Amino acid sequence: MTVAMTGTADEALPVYLRGQATEFLRSLRLHRESTTDARGAEESLEAARALRRAARRIGATLHTFRPLLDPEWAAVLRPELAWLRGTLSQEHACAARLTRLLDALHRLSGTPPVPGPALAPLPAAGRRPAGGNGWAQPAPPGAVETGRGSSGLTVGAAKAAALLERQLTLARTRAHSTALQALGSSRFHAVADTIAVLASEVPLTGAADDPKHLAARAEAELADAVAVLPLGQAGHPYNAGALTHGLASEAAPDAQDAPWLKVRSLLRLHRYAQEVLLGHACPDPRVLEAGHALDVHHEAAAAAQAAAHAARTPRIAPATAYALGVLHADQRHEVEAARFAFQQVWQHETAGTR
Amino acid sequence: MTVAMTGTADEALPVYLRGQATEFLRSLRLHRESTTDARGAEESLEAARALRRAARRIGATLHTFRPLLDPEWAAVLRPELAWLRGTLSQEHACAARLTRLLDALHRLSGTPPVPGPALAPLPAAGRRPAGGNGWAQPAPPGAVETGRGSSGLTVGAAKAAALLERQLTLARTRAHSTALQALGSSRFHAVADTIAVLASEVPLTGAADDPKHLAARAEAELADAVAVLPLGQAGHPYNAGALTHGLASEAAPDAQDAPWLKVRSLLRLHRYAQEVLLGHACPDPRVLEAGHALDVHHEAAAAAQAAAHAARTPRIAPATAYALGVLHADQRHEVEAARFAFQQVWQHETAGTR
Repeated sequence: MTVAMTGTADEALPVYLRGQATEFLRSLRLHRESTTDARGAEESLEAARALRRAARRIGATLHTFRPLLDPEWAAVLRPELAWLRGTLSQEHACAARLTRLLDALHRLSGTPPVPGPALAPLPAAGRRPAGGNGWAQPAPPGAVETGRGSSGLTVGAAKAAALLERQLTLARTRAHSTALQALGSSRFHAVADTIAVLASEVPLTGAADDPKHLAARAEAELADAVAVLPLGQAGHPYNAGALTHGLASEAAPDAQDAPWLKVRSLLRLHRYAQEVLLGHACPDPRVLEAGHALDVHHEAAAAAQAAAHAARTPRIAPATAYALGVLHADQRHEVEAARFAFQQVWQHETAGTR
Repeated sequence: MTVAMTGTADEALPVYLRGQATEFLRSLRLHRESTTDARGAEESLEAARALRRAARRIGATLHTFRPLLDPEWAAVLRPELAWLRGTLSQEHACAARLTRLLDALHRLSGTPPVPGPALAPLPAAGRRPAGGNGWAQPAPPGAVETGRGSSGLTVGAAKAAALLERQLTLARTRAHSTALQALGSSRFHAVADTIAVLASEVPLTGAADDPKHLAARAEAELADAVAVLPLGQAGHPYNAGALTHGLASEAAPDAQDAPWLKVRSLLRLHRYAQEVLLGHACPDPRVLEAGHALDVHHEAAAAAQAAAHAARTPRIAPATAYALGVLHADQRHEVEAARFAFQQVWQHETAGTR
């Protein structure tokens, strides 16, 4: 990111948005131009990540600083960016979830996975293989997770690994197709055109609101959301809170995770608002640590859910179901550990004892 | 316990052993005399507990202070006390394990069990029902765990609860019969006769060893065993150490639990040696807290093993196996929590910062 330092808060918003829009366009160009060899595939993956990153920051900025921006323009762009982020993040999320679950199965079996490329690259959009149907082919199942397969696992863990690999690779393949379709759609081109305009011209309202005040409001909303978290419980190690209702209804974990995911979202808004004001990445390591803890919370909760979901596959062997139960509980422990980590960072920040 | 205060360390050993022997005989008498009504059953349970307690202390004292005691006499009595303790503790252990597992299943299902009598009383030995076969009948399965049944549990958890209840009630019933048989055996009567003599006459060698020195040696052995524990890892919450190899071979948890169980045993020897020297219960709360943490370690590890064992029952439903997997991981998590608790107590003790 090459955002110039800004002198006043008033200039900060347009400078930041122009910078992120430029980054969005640069990533998109890199993604389209990436070659089909191994190095090009790596570049394509990195470009897709940078694209999501810029889209996330533009969307968050439109939200936090909305009184300063053309409301009609923002009302059109914001949901489109949300759609884009959601669509582009699914493939990566499925791949990361599978890696997390297979790593956990290996850890639980005492057989560390052979290190290898965890995430196969996303073929570049717009690359048209000769005689193809217009879309690059997704990686075949099984080719994805080299080194994290089922070798060395006990029967139940191996079967659980194979089942998860099948289900999450299928989900990933679908997400891949959806992402490629999205990147080739007229809907996406309309978003890209809007961002291209934003890179040179930010539609400000000229309202008198102080950006610092708006950033402070985002921080206050974060503080309010943190205040309702059960931090007292979270700060007590091994409170077994995250696994409560682990065998209850499917929706039970979602209900207890929701306030944490809300804080994760508001912490991002706070972080990006700080970036706007400062003109560079947020330098507060505690914000980054807290954000990392909540990212782990998010990923472990989704992985636990994937294990529970796989266990409901009809006609699986009891040994497979048992391994998936152990795996589910293990990932819910990671959720609890992430809450503890967040509490440690946050209490230290608030108490100023660190 | 009504052990008299002692003036010197030399008198302490015979006073303590006579006191524990008297307690052993008193408990045995109470156990035999307990009536068949509800109050009598409660008394019988309490008497059995006191009997195990005294047997444990006499056995430990024979070990720690062996240079001061007639070696031939001690060599005969010690294994007999170990046999008695092992035999008498099994029924209680099975019942406590079932209670722990059913409570955990309710917690994991978000349906707290209705409080009720957890452990049904052990019918008194020597009570001969008219027309019976000479042994009191064990409680019928299902009558044991009122209030901790499967109501309110989801299908998998309910089936897991029913399976565990069946298996552990069977084990308990067998342990009950074995204990009654033991208490009526000539082998037991020989032990009781030896203890009756001990209550008035302790076979000392007159050796010059200082009891304080022997107690210090027990403490040093404890310190050596603690030194090989992975306390650095244990002090880091959510290290996931106890669940490592949770899906590996059956023997894997035993191997990592062994050094902790050894410390539990040596901590008891230390505690009872302190009782001998002081003439009263060990007043150090940290020894009691550390001992409690290791008791939880022991119980949770055995419960986790019982859940894993139940999951290997042929032809169980996948939902049952899944619930048992979650339960196994939950109990291994309790093992890890117990290690953390022990580390906290022990480091504070050593550092003297508490």
